[in-house]
Amino acid sequence: MTHLFSFEERSQRLANVRARMAKQDIELLAITSPENIFYLCGYSAMSYYSPQALLVSADVRDPILVIRGIDVPCAAHTSWLSMSNVIGYSDEYVDQVDRHQWSFIVNVIREHGFAHNRIGLELDGYWLSPKSVQILQDELPNSRIIDTTLLVNWVRAIKSPAELQLMREAGAVADHAMARAFEAMRPGVRECDAVGQIVAAQIGGTVRYGGHAPSEPVFIAPGTRSDSPHLYWEEKPFEAGTSVNIELGGVRQHYNAGLSRTLSLGPPSDTLKKLMDANLEAMDAALNAVKPGIAAEDVEAAYRKTLVRYGFDKPSRVGYTIGIGVNPTWIERTISLKPGDRSILQEGMTFHLMAGLWQSDVSCTASETLIVTGSGAETLSTLPRGLHCLD
Amino acid sequence: MTHLFSFEERSQRLANVRARMAKQDIELLAITSPENIFYLCGYSAMSYYSPQALLVSADVRDPILVIRGIDVPCAAHTSWLSMSNVIGYSDEYVDQVDRHQWSFIVNVIREHGFAHNRIGLELDGYWLSPKSVQILQDELPNSRIIDTTLLVNWVRAIKSPAELQLMREAGAVADHAMARAFEAMRPGVRECDAVGQIVAAQIGGTVRYGGHAPSEPVFIAPGTRSDSPHLYWEEKPFEAGTSVNIELGGVRQHYNAGLSRTLSLGPPSDTLKKLMDANLEAMDAALNAVKPGIAAEDVEAAYRKTLVRYGFDKPSRVGYTIGIGVNPTWIERTISLKPGDRSILQEGMTFHLMAGLWQSDVSCTASETLIVTGSGAETLSTLPRGLHCLD
Repeated sequence: MTHLFSFEERSQRLANVRARMAKQDIELLAITSPENIFYLCGYSAMSYYSPQALLVSADVRDPILVIRGIDVPCAAHTSWLSMSNVIGYSDEYVDQVDRHQWSFIVNVIREHGFAHNRIGLELDGYWLSPKSVQILQDELPNSRIIDTTLLVNWVRAIKSPAELQLMREAGAVADHAMARAFEAMRPGVRECDAVGQIVAAQIGGTVRYGGHAPSEPVFIAPGTRSDSPHLYWEEKPFEAGTSVNIELGGVRQHYNAGLSRTLSLGPPSDTLKKLMDANLEAMDAALNAVKPGIAAEDVEAAYRKTLVRYGFDKPSRVGYTIGIGVNPTWIERTISLKPGDRSILQEGMTFHLMAGLWQSDVSCTASETLIVTGSGAETLSTLPRGLHCLD
Repeated sequence: MTHLFSFEERSQRLANVRARMAKQDIELLAITSPENIFYLCGYSAMSYYSPQALLVSADVRDPILVIRGIDVPCAAHTSWLSMSNVIGYSDEYVDQVDRHQWSFIVNVIREHGFAHNRIGLELDGYWLSPKSVQILQDELPNSRIIDTTLLVNWVRAIKSPAELQLMREAGAVADHAMARAFEAMRPGVRECDAVGQIVAAQIGGTVRYGGHAPSEPVFIAPGTRSDSPHLYWEEKPFEAGTSVNIELGGVRQHYNAGLSRTLSLGPPSDTLKKLMDANLEAMDAALNAVKPGIAAEDVEAAYRKTLVRYGFDKPSRVGYTIGIGVNPTWIERTISLKPGDRSILQEGMTFHLMAGLWQSDVSCTASETLIVTGSGAETLSTLPRGLHCLD
């Protein structure tokens, strides 16, 4: 198998995770989020609706992956683990009220001598249910559970050169999809048909860079729905004279670049132009503020200070760390660009600066996925940020 | 707003849920799975990566929906709740280690007088974290938590005529997408480009029925990867002489019809033909067994008995209940067609009979989404089930 990342890089990831485990005195990390499993062993399959765990011990042993039995061949095709470290459970454990998948995982933990460990779990993630934790507590009474929700996410916060390259490629795929959006969205075209074309561009990707599975649906909010950030498309046709907010992602090997723009299906109103002008100037202020050593909230403050000067306000955060994502989100959950987040930006971090102004009367969106470099922000889109107006 | 379902149907859903609550003496149900929230109040947005809850009290009060503040307009566009029953939290609660969304939800529970209740939670779902439950326990010490994981799912098991109509329409969309798959997958075409075309057909839908967001990615497993059910596509081109297993869904208003077929990019081998012939005969046996009153495991037994006669085996379940789904899955989790599941099939239930034979040497898949009618199985696809061979 050709690996996406060098042996050294893969080893370094585990070493970084173990260094953080040591700080919290964690003996075993049972990782359940598919992003983190992919990061640490390369396993990539849409199997995470069934409980699964990557067991990382504090010692030098290779991690052990426990997944549903029918997905073990998926690991052979994607993971860099030795197949002797991949263990599958039978369908007797699937959607069976009296036989839970975590009873199987707990058995693997026990058989490998971890039953008395301090075990780190992602207690505030999506893919570990309260019942699963209860089973572990009941069946391993001598273990001690520690919350390690974002432990691996923080290791992922600073990207390697190989990861940054994938992010740049994802940016190219996002641009490709947005260009398709500008072509496909026309008055009279059904929203679903246009979104179908956009997603075809996301997935097909470019000639150089094929696309991966999107981590979020394409969000479009045309006309009277433009006050809403996260709606699905409908079946009705676009109407001339309205504007449409678009948010989509380009993905390469699970690495995501987010991209938002606003399309005006006809000449834009003055209020829309004024709102977007203020938004763009505020985005520039934020982008100029980005550098290693600055606090996340100071980037947001630069954005907000400019925006309020024009009489507008943005109550929601203006961005977040982005990178590996699987459905339903590409958000890394470590750093937010919002008041009170004093995390320090470091070289190699990647953010989605998402400047969405969803107001009841007029709305617009513009965004950039950016890399924090030694000299400032490197933005991944080559498309103009302003309103795209249909002739 | 035009509603998908009549007032009577919507009221009946709540009444059915409250009847089940009464049996477990539940005073408040805090529903967190987006499928069940959609079912009970129509709310549809890709906002569920942020914690949210629909609070259903045992008394006649209307449910209360708590979501992220920026998504409140999404509720105005999609939910049939009065907007006075939709409560949003600010971004101060988003990805903030010291201020959790569930502290906000708990406050809403307290303010509405439910603090001393027996509270039902979906403790084995995807969208309620162990930390959230801990917060509820700590902040509402006089409440009592009861596991109600599949309570609403069981209410959803029997579909109304309006729901069955949406399932049939979803079946038409799935057929449309599979027909596109047969056109798009050609030797020399990149997998990603073909999948892009398939998803465009899923989302665009037909002239009559526009498509909704797929609940699962398109799974394709060509050539040497055909032993794997849940892999993502790659960038390499299809090769002549190989076969490809395809699984995809058609979706109407969150209602899903799953569909699997196998495409042979050239004349199929004798071993593949024999495997598929046995699979189809076994599927026929299963479909003939479907009727109200039969146990789920007996449908599987009919399938298996035929399959083993030809010397093959299927270790995984051969189907499951299907209906409303959101990413990452359309599986309802109530009934599985597998040994030991003695749930009784009833008129109006819908299943995805998923006959996937993933073997290391040769593999094939065929499936039908079906409605249990008074007289047997109504299948939703009009496409032949056998191997589709490229000329």
